[in-house]
Amino acid sequence: MTLNFVGRDILSAKDFTREEFDYLIEWGQKMAADQSQASPEFVNILQGKVLASLFFEPSTRTRLSFESAMLRLGGSVIGFASGDVSSTKKGETLADTIRTVANYADAIVMRHNLEGAQRLAAEFSTVPIINAGSGAGEHPTQAMLDLLTMKSELGTIDGLTIGFAGDLKFGRTVHSLAYVLSNYDVNLYFISPKNLPMQNRVLETLMSKQVKYKIGNNLQKVIPELDVLYMTRIQKERFADIEEYEKLKGAFILHADDLVSAKEEMIVMHPLPRVDEIHPSVDETTHARYFQQVKYGLYMRMAILGLILGGLK
Amino acid sequence: MTLNFVGRDILSAKDFTREEFDYLIEWGQKMAADQSQASPEFVNILQGKVLASLFFEPSTRTRLSFESAMLRLGGSVIGFASGDVSSTKKGETLADTIRTVANYADAIVMRHNLEGAQRLAAEFSTVPIINAGSGAGEHPTQAMLDLLTMKSELGTIDGLTIGFAGDLKFGRTVHSLAYVLSNYDVNLYFISPKNLPMQNRVLETLMSKQVKYKIGNNLQKVIPELDVLYMTRIQKERFADIEEYEKLKGAFILHADDLVSAKEEMIVMHPLPRVDEIHPSVDETTHARYFQQVKYGLYMRMAILGLILGGLK
Amino acid sequence: MTLNFVGRDILSAKDFTREEFDYLIEWGQKMAADQSQASPEFVNILQGKVLASLFFEPSTRTRLSFESAMLRLGGSVIGFASGDVSSTKKGETLADTIRTVANYADAIVMRHNLEGAQRLAAEFSTVPIINAGSGAGEHPTQAMLDLLTMKSELGTIDGLTIGFAGDLKFGRTVHSLAYVLSNYDVNLYFISPKNLPMQNRVLETLMSKQVKYKIGNNLQKVIPELDVLYMTRIQKERFADIEEYEKLKGAFILHADDLVSAKEEMIVMHPLPRVDEIHPSVDETTHARYFQQVKYGLYMRMAILGLILGGLK
Repeated sequence: MTLNFVGRDILSAKDFTREEFDYLIEWGQKMAADQSQASPEFVNILQGKVLASLFFEPSTRTRLSFESAMLRLGGSVIGFASGDVSSTKKGETLADTIRTVANYADAIVMRHNLEGAQRLAAEFSTVPIINAGSGAGEHPTQAMLDLLTMKSELGTIDGLTIGFAGDLKFGRTVHSLAYVLSNYDVNLYFISPKNLPMQNRVLETLMSKQVKYKIGNNLQKVIPELDVLYMTRIQKERFADIEEYEKLKGAFILHADDLVSAKEEMIVMHPLPRVDEIHPSVDETTHARYFQQVKYGLYMRMAILGLILGGLK
Repeated sequence: MTLNFVGRDILSAKDFTREEFDYLIEWGQKMAADQSQASPEFVNILQGKVLASLFFEPSTRTRLSFESAMLRLGGSVIGFASGDVSSTKKGETLADTIRTVANYADAIVMRHNLEGAQRLAAEFSTVPIINAGSGAGEHPTQAMLDLLTMKSELGTIDGLTIGFAGDLKFGRTVHSLAYVLSNYDVNLYFISPKNLPMQNRVLETLMSKQVKYKIGNNLQKVIPELDVLYMTRIQKERFADIEEYEKLKGAFILHADDLVSAKEEMIVMHPLPRVDEIHPSVDETTHARYFQQVKYGLYMRMAILGLILGGLK
Repeated sequence: MTLNFVGRDILSAKDFTREEFDYLIEWGQKMAADQSQASPEFVNILQGKVLASLFFEPSTRTRLSFESAMLRLGGSVIGFASGDVSSTKKGETLADTIRTVANYADAIVMRHNLEGAQRLAAEFSTVPIINAGSGAGEHPTQAMLDLLTMKSELGTIDGLTIGFAGDLKFGRTVHSLAYVLSNYDVNLYFISPKNLPMQNRVLETLMSKQVKYKIGNNLQKVIPELDVLYMTRIQKERFADIEEYEKLKGAFILHADDLVSAKEEMIVMHPLPRVDEIHPSVDETTHARYFQQVKYGLYMRMAILGLILGGLK
């Protein structure tokens, strides 16, 4: 099967089909295999191509992941790591910034604190736009790498029971991942504090696609049923009442002890950075996969850039 | 005709002859043609060369333009996007910074808020210095790309009537462009608020070279005569009296309606970023060229780097 | 002689033997010779390799030096120039940041304001860590390039009399250089204000290795004996009493006049940036070597990266 991704924007996980996700997984796995060779085959496929990396909001992981992916395929990178050094400080509109940068680059990867920023950018850009995180909206390439992680670590997506825990309201990675998983035959659990529930627009999409999901706030009770536990951060700033935060926080911190009831094969994932929500004791268990997830991120972004820029066929 | 630019500094538009500008235009056009090919010829001519990109003042456009140009010719880039991360914060002199960086790079492109900074740098550097904007002084490579834009879009420079509108006192791009155009047979109009007139030092150069120019403050009246309208920003900070600013601002904002009296072939240019001074309605007219100008910027900087670093002959 | 540096961390100058330093000098000199060729031999030996350049504390010299070294060997670079844009701002631990970045890069060069940071990083990293400056602790690659400078400029290390002047308490470069030199047959002078003496842990190492050293605070008196005068900055912030600072400062500023009593071959070095401590008049003397030192820095870092990443054998 060959699908054509050349020139395509990556704005939302909702814009892709199951067939397309499977195709991305396939290429992500090819990248993993290729990189483990002494002489990787794809080392020069993007020679002469330039990626613009526009991070209006800082990021270590996503930015360095995309940049390393581009460089490992022989391409090069321009951009900025903080909106402070961009012309938007001089009052330039985002549309003008994008129309400008599209003249210098073959694709633009962009993080922005406003949800619709990437879609607006795509309207004005002559080159593909990749959404690297949009406010509390989406983070589609994170969801794609999460999918690659599950498939590679567990061998399947269909049939999995996947729990999301933490801040499901503002966590853009869980929104995108829920959209991605809605294309598969999965059972979902959404476990969050009451004031940080999964957003209705996501639940509506799941219902329309007849995805089975349950909602709760007791992480401990759910753990034995899960194949995947996807943890996210709960940010203090989300709570008006600091006592409320302190009270809830503990219920969403995972310790190694909490995993004694878990299935043997169950894996714990996290988009990182973590702060308190996964205790270091979990790192030593056989369940931890959040650092491997980072590596799958590199491979998935290599696949995405290779396909969009026409280097992989 | 072959001119030798190897190792040459680009400090001021005054340092170049008409023959040299024509040569740069010629190479800029070759770069444009080459980049539109499936397999560009010049993709590796700067392999092994390193450009230091030292932006003591932030910039999106100029910095990314130079960096993309260098990378597209097979070279690589080191540097900083803001003076905050440089050793000048520790009290190092500019001379010492330059003497240091000249050991790491084959050329240095530099933006600085002080006018004489690049000329000082050139005194201490063992590698070529390219001025990427010096305070309210000059921005010579912008003027070179403006020249390439006019020549490519209108077929000639000689015979053109070119209007400059906006802040002509502090706008470094218009200073450099006026110097460049003083080598051609052109008619210039300088249209600005009374407190922001074209600088005397520029007018003196024009007079000494017998360039025809007129001065005014009524943009509307001049438009029908122009082949090129070169707009620039008026910055609020330049006015002691904010009411004065608000009153004048309107007279230097261009709308699509203002262009009904323009010649059919007339083009509107702007060094960007624009804030209010060109209304988005102008973008849709056949006169707008400010985004194409960005692309010519990439080609001109490829030509400049290729020639200075000995990759083009 | 062939030593194996592949995959090795560079954390402290104390971790290396004389044989290893000599090997590094040898490769640094090969790099110098290679770079002076029209077609350098080593231009592509790190193709496909990625260096992560993590500067939690800003730096011009060390960062650009490492990045230029990597690029000149055909490798590429990702990273950040300031901790402000990293995920540590979101509360991520250094251990997690390193575990993440180690997935994207083949080596990590890192500057941090805390002394133990690089050693901690090395515990969590799957790729080599290079210490590019750790608080008031060490700066081992600076010491290696200082050694290359002395050897290349004076032909030997054994037998040299070397004076260190300035802030010897907080100056990390002098700590590392003293450790390096403790492997050779040298005479050391430590000349500093009374409140900024060489640290005891360094002196203890020297004693245990039977290195001859003297301590004093009169720079003028010592100059005639020296083969190398290694100057460092005295930072105002180190003094509780500003009058004390002003009084002492003068005694640690070097003028050309101070060098009339120096041996003809004596060289003046400085890790840079300098502020006041070397007067510009010294730049014109035959003793000044601090800018050549910068160039040796590039060569030494090329050697280090080439050896650690397996490109040089």
